[in-house]
Amino acid sequence: MQFRFLFHALSLLILITGISMALPLLAAFIYGEADGKAFLISLVISLVTGGLIYFFTREPNREITHKEGFAIVGLGWIVVALFGSLPYVFSGVFNSFTDAYFEAVSGFTTTGSTVLTSIESMSHSILLWRSFTQWFGGMGIILLSIAILPLLGVGGMQLYKAEVPGPATDKLKPRIGETAKLLWKVYLLFTFIEFILLRAGGMSFYDAICHSFTTMATGGFSTKNVSVESFGSAYIEVVITIFMLLAGANFALHYQMLTGRLKASLKDNELRFYLAVIAISTFFIFINLSSTTDYGLWKSLRLSTFQVVSIITTTGYSSADFEQWSEFAKYFIFILMFVGGCAGSTGGGMKMLRIFLLLKQGYRELYRLIHPHAVVHVKFNNQKVSSDIMDSIWGFFSLYMFLFVIAALIMSLLGMDMISAVTSVATSMGNVGPGLGTVGPYDNFSHLPTTGKWVLTSCMILGRLEIYTLLVLFLPEYWEK
Amino acid sequence: MQFRFLFHALSLLILITGISMALPLLAAFIYGEADGKAFLISLVISLVTGGLIYFFTREPNREITHKEGFAIVGLGWIVVALFGSLPYVFSGVFNSFTDAYFEAVSGFTTTGSTVLTSIESMSHSILLWRSFTQWFGGMGIILLSIAILPLLGVGGMQLYKAEVPGPATDKLKPRIGETAKLLWKVYLLFTFIEFILLRAGGMSFYDAICHSFTTMATGGFSTKNVSVESFGSAYIEVVITIFMLLAGANFALHYQMLTGRLKASLKDNELRFYLAVIAISTFFIFINLSSTTDYGLWKSLRLSTFQVVSIITTTGYSSADFEQWSEFAKYFIFILMFVGGCAGSTGGGMKMLRIFLLLKQGYRELYRLIHPHAVVHVKFNNQKVSSDIMDSIWGFFSLYMFLFVIAALIMSLLGMDMISAVTSVATSMGNVGPGLGTVGPYDNFSHLPTTGKWVLTSCMILGRLEIYTLLVLFLPEYWEK
Repeated sequence: MQFRFLFHALSLLILITGISMALPLLAAFIYGEADGKAFLISLVISLVTGGLIYFFTREPNREITHKEGFAIVGLGWIVVALFGSLPYVFSGVFNSFTDAYFEAVSGFTTTGSTVLTSIESMSHSILLWRSFTQWFGGMGIILLSIAILPLLGVGGMQLYKAEVPGPATDKLKPRIGETAKLLWKVYLLFTFIEFILLRAGGMSFYDAICHSFTTMATGGFSTKNVSVESFGSAYIEVVITIFMLLAGANFALHYQMLTGRLKASLKDNELRFYLAVIAISTFFIFINLSSTTDYGLWKSLRLSTFQVVSIITTTGYSSADFEQWSEFAKYFIFILMFVGGCAGSTGGGMKMLRIFLLLKQGYRELYRLIHPHAVVHVKFNNQKVSSDIMDSIWGFFSLYMFLFVIAALIMSLLGMDMISAVTSVATSMGNVGPGLGTVGPYDNFSHLPTTGKWVLTSCMILGRLEIYTLLVLFLPEYWEK
Repeated sequence: MQFRFLFHALSLLILITGISMALPLLAAFIYGEADGKAFLISLVISLVTGGLIYFFTREPNREITHKEGFAIVGLGWIVVALFGSLPYVFSGVFNSFTDAYFEAVSGFTTTGSTVLTSIESMSHSILLWRSFTQWFGGMGIILLSIAILPLLGVGGMQLYKAEVPGPATDKLKPRIGETAKLLWKVYLLFTFIEFILLRAGGMSFYDAICHSFTTMATGGFSTKNVSVESFGSAYIEVVITIFMLLAGANFALHYQMLTGRLKASLKDNELRFYLAVIAISTFFIFINLSSTTDYGLWKSLRLSTFQVVSIITTTGYSSADFEQWSEFAKYFIFILMFVGGCAGSTGGGMKMLRIFLLLKQGYRELYRLIHPHAVVHVKFNNQKVSSDIMDSIWGFFSLYMFLFVIAALIMSLLGMDMISAVTSVATSMGNVGPGLGTVGPYDNFSHLPTTGKWVLTSCMILGRLEIYTLLVLFLPEYWEK
């Protein structure tokens, strides 16, 4: 392990985090808010700490290996959230560091669970920072899932290797940098268009910025206590739905589409599966809502579409208190928390790609029972999926389920009822946001015991880093020479 | 598909079912019960129907193929339960055929869920038949899991191929017959010893027969409303615990042990994993019970051991109303419903063998991230597990989870609350017996809507036949030439 290089990379992340605090600082200045002081202190601490580490770890560039890659990614989120939580600490928004760190991790991992009990009583600068942490985290995730994880060989994204824009080189650094720049442009473009469209729908300048940030990151932090419901506008819900859909799809495909290869991208297996799952889920919840509530057809359609897209893409906005819906609808929403968006999106969960391939192999095994000697390959986009990739996806699936079960056991041990325990873990690991029971869409996570908050904080990071990337750091073999 | 052969095999099963009704008929005669008439009618119908089909499908023996194998196994349980439900129908115990069939399937699949609202008000002959259906089903399962499924190539049992007693021939029929006879002797022996030990503990002759039947089958039907708690005897609980443990272990290993290869059997990876999971689970539930209830240490230990073994082996007896335990204990028990006993036991669930291999591969994938070029094989009993077997286990896992989710969605759609919906499906697919919520250990399944009962009936059969064996019959490819 080249610790010098690791610290160097982390110092860069700390510096960027510090610099980005200039945005809420500006907001505090404009709105004349006292929280500006907290941002100024945090900014200075971050810049000084980051600067010092940067200075002491300066050295000629060296090619990094897998090991440094995992360490930078794994520790990166943890360290960024640490410095990103400073404004919450200094502004006195929370009583404890636990709460401040929970909120910061929920931001940078684009989860959207909150320990704030009253969102609307917060200052503009604090809420802007909250939204910005998600948007910033979203940039990291695009970079991670499209540029870094495939090269590190993590769970399935290798399938898209050929589609990823950027120079065709095996050297890790230049490729990552180029890819990131291209995809971030797409991300920025979408955010900007959403902002314009939200403004056109009458949303305030400030709310439009915050919601564009958290939609594109599939984060789901809102500036309102009752989330998107507070705007009461079908137009705004439609705009947000469309951009959640975009954010939950693969950004490498978006890049393809924007550069004129629309037809090829629309044939992508994962994209089609994603849209099919959304259509089917919406259909069932729509039927269920229209027959078990007094919403009527139109409102049932509107609410079911918005909620399904919000949960599947792991955004976590709500346009209604779905805690009040039927057991069927609630259970369905719970299941969707595991599914997640497409690989290479800002969405969390297990990802469409993996679910798609798992189901395909389940079917293949059935088929092989009838034709034991037939050679049948699982295919993705007409290409044979290697058994190495399938193994890595299966391993991901079993670790995900295993950790989910263990974490939910711990939550229930802390005295949470079963539904709240299970859904709080599912929503954290899937980076969704709201759960059910005492952590429903219009509740919050502040009443959880401290240990529980740390368990969920770990789940958010684990889920965001596709389990493997963080877990690998805990293997003794990782630290061997 | 050689339909003649299929019907011939099914007719044999019907005849055996009919003949075995002589047992409850005898009981009705001894106890002077009116239900004897129902058994007589059912016996005659079964013998006549079975006899006619047998007569019309007589033909020289032919070697059967995979296709007939799947059809016999898949339809076998359905047909046997159909004839086995006749006594319930004719005795008027249930108001509907749905209930009668539910109870019969719950018996033959050794599940143990019941639609009886008051068990103790039933006649001796009916309760004996109920217990016997489980014991009879248990014989079928040993045959299925050790002799048939490995040859059909279903999910993992191939690993034990070499250990299975019987002639080393590739011809399906003689091998199956020989293996079955050897293992059934073990089954019979254990049942008999348990009967003696239960009698020695003061249990009545009748109760001892019924409970020996349902212990060895890991079935869990009891003659009492409050199951094993009603005996209030630590001795009886210990005896039953030991025999549940035996019944949940691989019968091929038991055969090995009894024929003098004790040392080798005790080294079996699955057996060790099985005992380790039980020890760990008991430990946690024991600690939890002793700190959240007023049971005290000794009673907490007694109740936790019994309940963990009962659920893991998928027997489903209870020695306390665990519905009243903490959320942690209940959730833990719920998770154990998925795990199940060892492959080659009468237990249901996913089986220890599979869980063991899934976790091993999860770990291997982590390891491979650090050493991308290392060739690491998943091993079982020091032997490399082929990727074909791993694929088939993964396929099993994903189909199991997928069907679980879908079935629970249907149950919640029928208006059940989430906990009852989810646990009723888990307990049915795992062939356990009791669930939580409205289908807890001291509740029953009679209040479910008719559709719900049929969903759970299907789940019991699906789980019992290791998903694949039944599902394969629904593939269009299966019926192609």
